[in-house]
Amino acid sequence: MPSTTSTRPGGRSARVRAAVHHAVEELLSENPAEAVTLPLIAARAGVHPTTVYRRWGSLAELLSEVATSRFSGDIVVPDSGSLREDLERWAIDVSTDLSDPDTVALMRATLGSAAEGGCACVGDRHAQLDAMLERERSRGGKAPGVQTAADALLSPLYYRALFTTEPMEPGWVRGLVRNLLR
Amino acid sequence: MPSTTSTRPGGRSARVRAAVHHAVEELLSENPAEAVTLPLIAARAGVHPTTVYRRWGSLAELLSEVATSRFSGDIVVPDSGSLREDLERWAIDVSTDLSDPDTVALMRATLGSAAEGGCACVGDRHAQLDAMLERERSRGGKAPGVQTAADALLSPLYYRALFTTEPMEPGWVRGLVRNLLR
Repeated sequence: MPSTTSTRPGGRSARVRAAVHHAVEELLSENPAEAVTLPLIAARAGVHPTTVYRRWGSLAELLSEVATSRFSGDIVVPDSGSLREDLERWAIDVSTDLSDPDTVALMRATLGSAAEGGCACVGDRHAQLDAMLERERSRGGKAPGVQTAADALLSPLYYRALFTTEPMEPGWVRGLVRNLLR
Repeated sequence: MPSTTSTRPGGRSARVRAAVHHAVEELLSENPAEAVTLPLIAARAGVHPTTVYRRWGSLAELLSEVATSRFSGDIVVPDSGSLREDLERWAIDVSTDLSDPDTVALMRATLGSAAEGGCACVGDRHAQLDAMLERERSRGGKAPGVQTAADALLSPLYYRALFTTEPMEPGWVRGLVRNLLR
């Protein structure tokens, strides 16, 4: 069934994708973003440059896909029965992720290469946040809107990771949750 | 006095700096960041590439200087006598600036080229914020700390500009100030 080969899990296509994603993350952790090019990525992944050009078209496309995958599904949404505790655990997990220099390097490269409009670097963070708020409402509790929560919780985490050199201590993260829920 | 030439305001050095900064902003508004190189910037500014290499060393250095200058001293800190009104006016000015695609292009390029640690894209925003909060305290009023204010006001503005495609309406900005001061 040649027509389904390209999407079969574990097939050649999936292996190429995994190798290329891995090469991107490795190269970005070793080099400044401007030195990471499609031919270099292809060489590291052990695939022909033409394969990479044909499949992803541009470095921006590839970085966007890596970022989407990197920032999605990686963090388990907690379900402790308490909104405050869920938000604290989740936000501390996000802050730990954003404290990793390799994560920041991928974000910087993705932001730098993207033309305009949005960025894959938030992945499904808004959906994860919304799930916790919605669960609280379904329990009959009160919860802020997802936009308010993103402004109060997600924004400071990403801002601090990108624009400052300050560490993200758990105490600071809990303070953000406290301000949101007060 | 040849030894003072390089810092004399209005001298050749200042003209070169202005031309190069202008060239960076122009080129970034016309091209994807990865296409903007030091030789291209030198050509647009009408200066020899060696001059640019000697003075700034790298594209990252140059972009960082342009961003620092671009995000500093551009917005007048208001002094209305009311902290809430000052913060609203200032934050709306910041949001207007961050709504400009050229501003976002410069931010993306600067973030993309920077190695790690902080970013010049906030310029003196923290100092401006601190000045308004300090003034309120010196009037005998109460004001949140600058870190709390940066988390609640600056972060959402920069996050929305970089990571989302949502517009920054004045009503939303006023809501951020309301949440900070409640």
